[in-house]
Amino acid sequence: MDTVQLIGKTRDNIPLTAAEIDFLVALYTAGAVPDYQMAAWLMAVYCRGLTREETVALTLAMAHSGEVIQWPDAWRPITDKHSTGGVGDTTTLIVAPIVAAAGVRVGKMSGRGLGFTGGTLDKLESIPGFSVQLSAADFRRQIETLYLAVIGQSEELAPADGLMYALRDVTGTVESLPLIASSVMSKKLASGADVIVLDVKCGAAAFMKTREEAEVLARLMVAIGEQAGRRTLAIVSDMNAPLGSAVGNSLEIDEATEVLQGQGNRRLIDVSLTLAGAMIYGAGKADDWESGIARAREVWESGEAFSVWKAWLAAQGGSVDWVGHRPLTQAAHVHTVTAQEEGVVNGIDAMVLAQVSRELGAGRMVKEDTISPMVGLRLHCELNDTIRRGDALVTVYSDDMTDEEALTERLRRAFILGTEAADIPLIYERIDGKENFTQ
Amino acid sequence: MDTVQLIGKTRDNIPLTAAEIDFLVALYTAGAVPDYQMAAWLMAVYCRGLTREETVALTLAMAHSGEVIQWPDAWRPITDKHSTGGVGDTTTLIVAPIVAAAGVRVGKMSGRGLGFTGGTLDKLESIPGFSVQLSAADFRRQIETLYLAVIGQSEELAPADGLMYALRDVTGTVESLPLIASSVMSKKLASGADVIVLDVKCGAAAFMKTREEAEVLARLMVAIGEQAGRRTLAIVSDMNAPLGSAVGNSLEIDEATEVLQGQGNRRLIDVSLTLAGAMIYGAGKADDWESGIARAREVWESGEAFSVWKAWLAAQGGSVDWVGHRPLTQAAHVHTVTAQEEGVVNGIDAMVLAQVSRELGAGRMVKEDTISPMVGLRLHCELNDTIRRGDALVTVYSDDMTDEEALTERLRRAFILGTEAADIPLIYERIDGKENFTQ
Repeated sequence: MDTVQLIGKTRDNIPLTAAEIDFLVALYTAGAVPDYQMAAWLMAVYCRGLTREETVALTLAMAHSGEVIQWPDAWRPITDKHSTGGVGDTTTLIVAPIVAAAGVRVGKMSGRGLGFTGGTLDKLESIPGFSVQLSAADFRRQIETLYLAVIGQSEELAPADGLMYALRDVTGTVESLPLIASSVMSKKLASGADVIVLDVKCGAAAFMKTREEAEVLARLMVAIGEQAGRRTLAIVSDMNAPLGSAVGNSLEIDEATEVLQGQGNRRLIDVSLTLAGAMIYGAGKADDWESGIARAREVWESGEAFSVWKAWLAAQGGSVDWVGHRPLTQAAHVHTVTAQEEGVVNGIDAMVLAQVSRELGAGRMVKEDTISPMVGLRLHCELNDTIRRGDALVTVYSDDMTDEEALTERLRRAFILGTEAADIPLIYERIDGKENFTQ
Repeated sequence: MDTVQLIGKTRDNIPLTAAEIDFLVALYTAGAVPDYQMAAWLMAVYCRGLTREETVALTLAMAHSGEVIQWPDAWRPITDKHSTGGVGDTTTLIVAPIVAAAGVRVGKMSGRGLGFTGGTLDKLESIPGFSVQLSAADFRRQIETLYLAVIGQSEELAPADGLMYALRDVTGTVESLPLIASSVMSKKLASGADVIVLDVKCGAAAFMKTREEAEVLARLMVAIGEQAGRRTLAIVSDMNAPLGSAVGNSLEIDEATEVLQGQGNRRLIDVSLTLAGAMIYGAGKADDWESGIARAREVWESGEAFSVWKAWLAAQGGSVDWVGHRPLTQAAHVHTVTAQEEGVVNGIDAMVLAQVSRELGAGRMVKEDTISPMVGLRLHCELNDTIRRGDALVTVYSDDMTDEEALTERLRRAFILGTEAADIPLIYERIDGKENFTQ
């Protein structure tokens, strides 16, 4: 096989065989195919696309480019979830304890935030003492006993994906559906999960801007998972408004703690229970998705999930003395923005909140940026709440004095007020791999 | 400016400005844009194309990436020609002496043969003593006094093109019209020619397979030349059959010598006079293309061009004792293939001849291959000649004994015999930049 010939096939819309894709990925990972040839191939993929068969082959090749975790049969099924990234999306922190409390193991490798999206690792690290760097043995032990662990992505898992993602980042080939799908799913396959639940976001503050694109990506990832022999389910959910009420690392830990105590943002709770229900159903602990959601609600309302939350934080070295007593967030400067007009909240611009939060220091522009764990935003209203003049809209937590006047104006404009409640969608679609993709 | 952003624009069909293209080419030439980013951009260009304005800007940026030759005003206009590459295409060797004999200077930088196409430098070097490595001073002196010199392409001319061509070669981005056009024209612009005449080949043994593609390329290159302020003319000509009767280096020198003595292959003479006429007309020494061709025919028939040929070979150190006395070609083994059937030659498969010739050692598969100057093929019939059983079709000149039987069979099959003369096109189109492209 000749690399230039393979590049030429993709460029000319001639599908590659699985063997050809294996060859390309294996040689690239080994350093025998240079970056410039992979860059040309990636751009050809961007421009011409890949067939579903090619995308599955690419995902498997990347998944098998390094270590593939084998879980003991007695612990299985192991579940995992993935979100394509949003603003105020604290679901992992809520879903994982619920699923573990329902008797289903969760083994998750997470990433850090980049651009406008937050990252679970950054959020967990805002808890004093919490470590995301468990040894392989500790990771396994915790999953065995506590049914739950979240650690940083190992570089030994799917190394081809790490290399290819870094190259895509500097060659304008990030936003390609088959490349996004294979990147996400290769890591999920390598981490050995039997059940994979995906939350594909769409909207102004998501990578996928339209519902149609998001559905195509979700179906593609579900198909890949099912063809690789994993139970795979997905939702397509809205990301025009932030999902929850907190944007920022410790603020999201506080919000997750509140939700696990039984109260909080309606949208965040709805998506969290839907995802947890999918994991419980996918693991065979419920007969259908709805029953899975009902079971998730049970352990959430009973406080069992909250107990797991505290045990989890302690197990990974995090302080828990604050949990249930006081907020984790302690910022030098706190400033609350109030409404100047009255109306019904018909929209909250997630992108504006994400930008402000990043500027405060909660997020990264580039990987090397350091972040400030305690800064961010906390909303005081939800979509379709009625607001009166003078009501608190959002509180700003910052390290330094900011230009309060300008910031207040920007944040006020993020709230779109109407005269009556609007019909604002949250979950557009549920996709069950069993129904849609198995033969 | 950010390279990833520029790649993204081309990928998304958003035209780059001339300043953006300059930035990309200048930084790549300086080593500040890495190969993998240029490879991604080139593939985006391959897939999405470039506008005419972008192609002109790319050509100018590449032309100005190194030295640009400035000819003394007194010598101008300097003319140059370029062929996109074919089989048995000896035109440069015939055209250059004709044009010089007509009082128009020719300063040409040529390349070597690669793949199925021959290269003028290789042909000239089959003449004992002939040097294609003149110093800049000798090159200029010869153009001043003899009106004619052909040397190897300097690496100081359009270095961006050299770098980008090498990258295209290993990234599947060679066959892109804007990239081909800008590559060819950047070298022509950098070599300082005032008049550029192009022969764009189409057919089975050409890079452009269809007449339509070839016309688009020809018009694009003419537009680039005219927009860069050069008189540019082109023909689109057939490359299904070989142009002349010889395929191989010294064999083509022998054929050029014959033609310059006033006899030879009708198609080769026709294309040579058309190109020479374009150069003479473009240089202002004739009122129109037809008058230019008439003037070319005059100096060809008078033997003036033949005198220049001998002077040229001698000027660049080549032996001339053989010229007009005996063939240059002296091969260890000579074998003539004869016809087994009778008929009219309706086609000669140039690709088969090129492959056989390359296998004999006349051409290169890769740049590093060495070639054998004296091997190749000499046809004994032309298109539409009537052949009787036993007539000589082609003579094979080789260094070693070959499998004569198999070779004879392959070569015989290259001749397509019919019952009557066929209408076989040669020059599909003449394009005069003055008529088509100036405002």
